[in-house]
Formats: sequence, C-alpha cells, structure tokens
Amino acid sequence: MKKFQLGCQLNYTISQPTTLLFNLEVVNNNYQNILHEKLQLNPSLAIDKYISDSEKNRFIRVNAPTGKIEISYQATVELFHYYANNNNIAEVPLAELPIETLPYLYPSRYCQSDLLFGLAESEFGNLNPGYSRVMMISDWIYNKVKYLFGSTNSQTSAFDTATQRVGVCRDFAHLGIAFCRALNIPARFVSAYAYNLNPPDFHACFEAYLGDRWYLFDPTKLVPLTGIIRISTGRDATDVSFATLFGTFEMNDQHLFVEDISDVQENQKIENFEAISIS
Amino acid sequence: MKKFQLGCQLNYTISQPTTLLFNLEVVNNNYQNILHEKLQLNPSLAIDKYISDSEKNRFIRVNAPTGKIEISYQATVELFHYYANNNNIAEVPLAELPIETLPYLYPSRYCQSDLLFGLAESEFGNLNPGYSRVMMISDWIYNKVKYLFGSTNSQTSAFDTATQRVGVCRDFAHLGIAFCRALNIPARFVSAYAYNLNPPDFHACFEAYLGDRWYLFDPTKLVPLTGIIRISTGRDATDVSFATLFGTFEMNDQHLFVEDISDVQENQKIENFEAISIS
Amino acid sequence: MKKFQLGCQLNYTISQPTTLLFNLEVVNNNYQNILHEKLQLNPSLAIDKYISDSEKNRFIRVNAPTGKIEISYQATVELFHYYANNNNIAEVPLAELPIETLPYLYPSRYCQSDLLFGLAESEFGNLNPGYSRVMMISDWIYNKVKYLFGSTNSQTSAFDTATQRVGVCRDFAHLGIAFCRALNIPARFVSAYAYNLNPPDFHACFEAYLGDRWYLFDPTKLVPLTGIIRISTGRDATDVSFATLFGTFEMNDQHLFVEDISDVQENQKIENFEAISIS
Amino acid sequence: MKKFQLGCQLNYTISQPTTLLFNLEVVNNNYQNILHEKLQLNPSLAIDKYISDSEKNRFIRVNAPTGKIEISYQATVELFHYYANNNNIAEVPLAELPIETLPYLYPSRYCQSDLLFGLAESEFGNLNPGYSRVMMISDWIYNKVKYLFGSTNSQTSAFDTATQRVGVCRDFAHLGIAFCRALNIPARFVSAYAYNLNPPDFHACFEAYLGDRWYLFDPTKLVPLTGIIRISTGRDATDVSFATLFGTFEMNDQHLFVEDISDVQENQKIENFEAISIS
Repeated sequence: MKKFQLGCQLNYTISQPTTLLFNLEVVNNNYQNILHEKLQLNPSLAIDKYISDSEKNRFIRVNAPTGKIEISYQATVELFHYYANNNNIAEVPLAELPIETLPYLYPSRYCQSDLLFGLAESEFGNLNPGYSRVMMISDWIYNKVKYLFGSTNSQTSAFDTATQRVGVCRDFAHLGIAFCRALNIPARFVSAYAYNLNPPDFHACFEAYLGDRWYLFDPTKLVPLTGIIRISTGRDATDVSFATLFGTFEMNDQHLFVEDISDVQENQKIENFEAISIS
Repeated sequence: MKKFQLGCQLNYTISQPTTLLFNLEVVNNNYQNILHEKLQLNPSLAIDKYISDSEKNRFIRVNAPTGKIEISYQATVELFHYYANNNNIAEVPLAELPIETLPYLYPSRYCQSDLLFGLAESEFGNLNPGYSRVMMISDWIYNKVKYLFGSTNSQTSAFDTATQRVGVCRDFAHLGIAFCRALNIPARFVSAYAYNLNPPDFHACFEAYLGDRWYLFDPTKLVPLTGIIRISTGRDATDVSFATLFGTFEMNDQHLFVEDISDVQENQKIENFEAISIS
Repeated sequence: MKKFQLGCQLNYTISQPTTLLFNLEVVNNNYQNILHEKLQLNPSLAIDKYISDSEKNRFIRVNAPTGKIEISYQATVELFHYYANNNNIAEVPLAELPIETLPYLYPSRYCQSDLLFGLAESEFGNLNPGYSRVMMISDWIYNKVKYLFGSTNSQTSAFDTATQRVGVCRDFAHLGIAFCRALNIPARFVSAYAYNLNPPDFHACFEAYLGDRWYLFDPTKLVPLTGIIRISTGRDATDVSFATLFGTFEMNDQHLFVEDISDVQENQKIENFEAISIS
Repeated sequence: MKKFQLGCQLNYTISQPTTLLFNLEVVNNNYQNILHEKLQLNPSLAIDKYISDSEKNRFIRVNAPTGKIEISYQATVELFHYYANNNNIAEVPLAELPIETLPYLYPSRYCQSDLLFGLAESEFGNLNPGYSRVMMISDWIYNKVKYLFGSTNSQTSAFDTATQRVGVCRDFAHLGIAFCRALNIPARFVSAYAYNLNPPDFHACFEAYLGDRWYLFDPTKLVPLTGIIRISTGRDATDVSFATLFGTFEMNDQHLFVEDISDVQENQKIENFEAISIS
C-alpha cells in the first residue's frame, strides 16, 4: 500500500458568464481509497456534481459569473497496487474478453486505431503477443517520439503523433492506446496526479487489458508507475478533460503538488516487478 | 402508437475461426415495446449476450468455426412517439443540460466536431437557436451531400464528408452530429430498422437534445421519422456497429424487412407535427 | 498605365550560419516594366541570383554567417493592365487550353483540387461557366472564410481552409486555386506587393486562365486589383516563398511600402471594368 | 551502354467526347538516345505534341470522339549510365546546390515533406549524410511498406503511406522523395518503362541529388536500376501522369513490353557498382 497527499489550485479570469466542467477529484474505488479530501471554490458558487456510470469518474459543473474564479482540491489517498511477473501475462482472445472491455477496442477521436492498423502491423505485428508486446509499444513511443512541452494542441491525435513524432503525455498515451486497439488489445486513457513529475502538472498514461486485468503503461517514463493517482478513465482525452470551459476566459495559473507519504519499506518491495495494475 | 414487424437475415462464410459481435436486436425501453422476438443462429452456436449500461444497446458475441453461418432475427414492436410543435423547442444552455447528455457534446472518431467548428460557425452560427437550427443543419446536409450507395467506407468520417459531399445514411448522420456538437448541442447516433427504405438495409440517423428531450433527425429524408425502429444509440457508428467480425470472412448476403402493422388512423394523426421524439 | 514606388526591408538574427533564399524582386515582363530598382544586403554578402525558366521569378541565394542581416529592396514599376468586360469571358475547353497552362490544372501541395472535387461540384458545378463563375468562387471565399491575421501557418492548405473557414491572403488564394482546378480551370498563385494594404505586408492572390489570358482575382478584397505588383507566379506558395531560411534564425522586423505615383486620370478610367489581366 | 526495345498499347472506350493527355514517349537526352520510335493512334486523330521546358518530358494531347481508341508506342533506346562507388558520394550543402535542383526541395501534392519532417528526423536524422543515408531511406521503405497491387488510389500520398504502410511503386517513390526533401536533399519522381517488371506495367522510382548529379533509387527493388528507361521527370506523379483523361471513359486493357538487347558483356561490367545515375 502506497499513500499520497496531493492537490491542485486553478485560477481563471472569466470575461463572460460561462459554464465550467471540472474533473479534478480522484476516483474512489477498490484500488484507491480516499482518506480525506476537500474541494473549494472561490467565490463560493453552487456546484453540480455527478459520477459517470461505468468508470466512476467525478465531474463538477459550475456556472461562473464574470470575474476571477479559483478552484482548489486536496486529498489524501491510499493505493493498493497489484504486482505481477510480466513474463506470464497473455493477451486475451476476443472470444474471452470481458464484455466491459469491448468498447475499448474501438477507435475514438484521438485514438484512430483503424487508421493506424498498417503501421501497428508493420511495427508490432510479428512480436510475441502478451505483456511484453505492449511494453515494446510503450518503449517504441518513448524512443521514437520526442517529449516536448507545448508542441501539440487539443486537436492533436494519435494519427498526427505517429508521423509528427513529438508530443506531451496525452499524445504518448493516445498513440499507445491506438496501437493496442489496432492489435485487438483493449486499451484506455488514464488521467492522473503523478508523483515526482517535474514541473508538476496533470499527467496522462494508459492501460491495456491483459491476462485478467488492466495493466498500467506510461510511455513518457517520467514518473514511477506506482506514483500515478487516478483521476479518471476513458476512451481518450475527450472523456476525462480536467477542465472544459465553454465561454471566454483566461487561465491565470495552475499549481499542483503530490507528496509520497507511504512507508519507506513499501517502496523497496516493488522493485522486482515490472507489471503493475491499479484497476 | 405505431406497430411494426421487422427482421433480418445475414449469411457469412468464415474461412478461419473468428469472433463475431452483432448488434441487431431492437432496444427495449419506455418508447419501444417488444411484443415478440426471435433470434436464430445456424449452426446453433453458444451465444454470449450483454446490454450496455447507459443506452441499453444489446450485443451478441459468437465464436464461429470455419464454414457458413447464418443469423436471423424477427421482432414485433410497438413505438410510442412524442409529437411536438417544432416552433417551441429551444436549445438548452450548458448550465442546464442534463448530466447524461454531456458526453454527447464531445468529438468522437467519426464526428470530429472540434475540427468542424469553423465550418459550423460559418454556416449555422448566425441562425436562431432551437429546433429550427438543427432542422436547417439536416436540410443543409440533404441539399449539399449526395446520397450514393457504396461511395464511402468504414474509415469515412464527418470531416471527410464535409468536403467530399457524398455518402450514405451513416455519413449523413455523422455530419449532422458533428455540426450540432460544434454548436454545443448534444447529438448522438441512432442505428435502426427503417420502414419503406428502398432497397431494404440497416439505417442510421441522429438525435439532438433540445428542450427537454432527444429529437430525431434524418438528413437522408429517405424514410418517415415515425418509421424508424431503434436498434442502438451511441456517440457514433463505432458504438453501434450492427456486425463486427475480427477474422477472415466473406458476407454472402443480407435480407431485411420492415412492415407497418399500425392502425391506419395513427398515420393520419401525426401529419401536423414535424418534431418527433422517441427517447 | 499605372506607376508605383515600392520596397521592403527585412531584418534577421542568424544564430547558426545558414542559407537564405529570397524572392522579393518584382518580375520584369511585358506587363510590368521596372524603371528603377535597388537591392541591398547589410552586411554586404555575395549573392547568387537566378531567374526561373517559365515564369521568370527572381531568386537570390545568400549564405549568411552568424549575426544580424538586413535585406532591403526598392523599385519603381510601370504596370500595363488589360481591362475587359467580364460578361464576355468564357472558360476554355481542355482541348483548346494553351500547353503552358496545363500544369496549372493539377493539384499541388497547398491546392489539393483532387480532394476538393466534391465540394467544388456541390457549390459551383451548376453555375454558368466563365469569368462570372470564378468571380462567384472568389466571392464565396470572401463571404465564408474569415480573414484573421495569424490564424494559420505554413502547413495550412486549401483542404484545411475549406473546413476551418479562417485564414490569410495566402489561404484565400490557395482555396480559390483549388476550386478552379477542380472545375478544370487552370489557376495559379501570385505573390505581390499591394497598394493600400493595411498593415503593409506581402500579399497573395490568384489568376485563372479564361478566354485568352490569365485574369486576376483577390478573394480578400483588401486591395484594388490594379494595385497588385507581381513578385512571382507559381503553382502555390511553395514556388514563390518570399523568404526561405534553412537554419536557426529569428526575424526581427519587416517593413514594406507601396506608393501610387500614377496619373490621376488613370485611376478614373478603370472604374467601369471588373475583369483585369496583367499577364 | 545498355540497349532496350520497349513499347505499350493502351485501349479505351470513350462514352463522351473527351480530351486525353498522354506522356508515354521516352525522354530524349544525353543519357538516353532514341534510335527509333513509332507512335500510332487508331483511329488516326490529330495530335498536339509538346515538350516541357526544363525536364523535356513529352506530352501528347488528343481530342477523342465517342468510341474506341487505341494508342501504341514502340521505341529502341540506348542508355548511358554513370556508375559510381557509393562510398564517396556526399550530400550537398544548400549553399552549393545547383539552382535547378532547388524546386525539388519543396513539398508537393504527393510528397508533403513538411508534414513528414518529424518522422524523417526521428528515423534518419542521426544517420551519416551521403548516398548511404538515401540508400537507408530506400531500404526502410522496402522493409516497412508492403508492396500490394491495387492497395492505393490516385489520392494516396506519401503522408498516407507513412502510416498505411502499403502501396505500389508510385507510393514507394513518393515516400522516398518526401523523406529526402525533409532532410534537405533534392529528390524527384521518375516515371519509366522497366525491364523485367512482372507483370509488365509502367514503373516509378525516384532520384536524389548527391555529389554532382542525380542518383537513381528504387525502393520496390523489383527491377535492376539499369533496366529503367525514363519517360518523364517531375516533382511527383502529378507532373508525369502517363495518361490523363478528363471525360467519361473506360480503360479496356493495357500491354507493355521491355526487351534487353544490350551486349552480354555490358551486364557483367556493372555488377560492382551500387550507385547509378542516368541524368
């Protein structure tokens, strides 16, 4: 069990009354236990909260008047990871995939697996199936795509990244997901707080369904897999945008922090395992 | 209340054992009442059935051996339409949209509303909001896009159709959805059996959320709106593909039929209304 | 005959020795007579000059060391326009097009006429052929595409502009060219100095081959057609980039000026004609 | 010196009077000497011939009435190859490139080098410059792109092939050209008759400017480089289409033949050289 304290503070200046959707709160499930949390809005506005059906993502809707608005969130979270020997994890035949994983086989806005079938086949089609193949995909992205802050925008998709070969965590995750789906491996997007990310920012990585569960992969290799605290799960970034603003506004600044408050022993124990699942 | 008898029969030759996913059965909900139905597989194979969480779409998974396989389905269905005067139906501000409609605001694989924002603004941005604006979108597609069987394929998206100006019902629906979402109107894909479609085939149209419910639009104008019997609802065609085959196969042929067995009076009553909702 | 004084001054800071290609000097031909001109480089570097085969575009190649570099150009030019009554100008059948116009029928990097065939047919296919149809294309662009400085980049093509509906003079010209070619009308790109452009900048417009010559069209409607002084002619912006720098550099600033020194009477004479040719 | 006899015969059925452009005759220059040739049209129609300015490509324009039309061409050609040791051929700095090679640095319709800059840098940016780097590009295409007849169409570009990883000779050449240009190596398209191509068809490959001349590369590796007899040279396939038909027509069939009538000794002599130039 690992334990983290984390939080964020976002400031906006709204120039016309607008609706804001936030998805900043960490998910609460069997693998992630929220010990304490606090969400604050300044000015104090009415909040409309809801949780998505299947993935339990938590959304907040706020109608903001003109002026400054600040949203801040803090939480203390316990994580219960599943550690596995990566040599024994197989890909699952379509006939045996759990029903709820099937939607994660299809192409989505930012993960056009149907357009990347040829590339995926050419690069990964001959590799042995299993955890190691997805790890090869993740390593391929790490080696062939340059991580460069500010290099892409909200319209950039896996199809673009495949040739532009530059992006940020979100683009790395999209490409990993698209490659997996092109090979009939269910894959999905994870938005997260991440320990030791420098500079601190929201993070994104992906999960592939292998063996009997979802395993975590981070092609950026920027943070330890066990330092990823899940906010949301979705088909791609469209499902889990941490902030959607429909009006005219300006973001002033954004602060995040993630502190590891686990027992020291915990961190030693996990060194021998590569494969990690948290869902 | 309208009443239909409908059905389909699909034949495949499978050259390597494969997994098939079908989504052929009509949805069963408050607006659509299944009086009787029958699904048959020949040869008789084990079927894995499931229903999606939110939209109650019905899927079948079959593991097919080499050889011929035939699936047939028949149903008798009652439809309970909601008829409205189209002059009084407003667009809903983001602040007031029901939570469950929000996912239908985002771009998806085939409905890249983010890429069509400029086009939607240029063509429809100055129109009065409301049902009439969505009707204008639907008419624009009808007038500017040529309906041509076989002109597009499974990779064709709304972004393509916007410039290629040719497509089938699926492409017409995708473009309508993308335009609506670009204007912040929730919109979603409907796959259906359709009365009077010639030649008989699976049909697709779309729904936009206006006023207090989802209204039906069919930019192909090929069938009466009241003759659409819903199979599934989704973000776009990826969610509701009537048949997904992962292996090597050949489709031999496909037969559909839809018969109107409603009372004659019913058909006269609805003539005065344009706006129709069935969800 | 119109007469202009014009010039430009460009400043760069070169951080690594690099090669620069400039295409700033106005073309010298039967329609454009250079009375006087002066090109200066500071520091004074060796210049490699050449003129393209068919269109007589003038290029300069300079190998620049690290540091600041300034290039300035001034010229006095007489323009001999051909004025025509736009009602009598026909499109030319393929069988009769002059040989040298044929390359301007084909798609190019930024004018993918082959991808815009459907759109061109849908919007302009039913219009009467001739000068008026190209004018309708130019007006369509003026009305449907927003002119916005800085909205596009060097990768933006006619295919993008068709849906993004925003751009600068270069994008307007590319779209006009692509539409013409899709309708089998030869069309080409013109880079130019332009009188009364505010703020002063390099300008771009296009020519279509109609009747027995190339006619000028400017979908931006920002300047009078008779105030366009040609630098270069090409298939699209790739052929006539005013400055191509292959290394690491920064542009400091850029000044242009264009002064009309024609007789006053000249300006009154041309008011009655819409169609203008200068090549 | 190598010597070939070659020819083609094309048959069309024209359903509406149309204009046809052919580019079937081999180029006549210092490297390719036409000993004898014969062009026939049946029915015998008026022919409009022209030769392009810079590359001396030979075009024929024919106005065809309704009905069948057959064009046939036969030639006997001597080729004078330049053989070089591939270890000593360098890339040329931009400052020293001959003026006439510069247009072949820019992106074109099917070779969008600007869109493939990231991919080219990632895959080839760290390789030693020179002939060997272009050979690596050619080998990369050979290894990573599947040659499949009928897999692409006239809209397929290098940008598509980079991810689709399937194509024909034309697509292989386009991708090679785009990669070279992205690395500032001038590269151009060659359409050709080819010895030993099976089944016989028109062929395409590319040239890169290295050292002091254009060297030939064929990423398909389907024919010997010395068996390529040039029809045309261009920026990409748009410039050198062997047949462009603007009306409604049907191609009935097409026959080609290429026979090597060189001295036997010639074929032995060239075995020791990899680098071959024919322009």
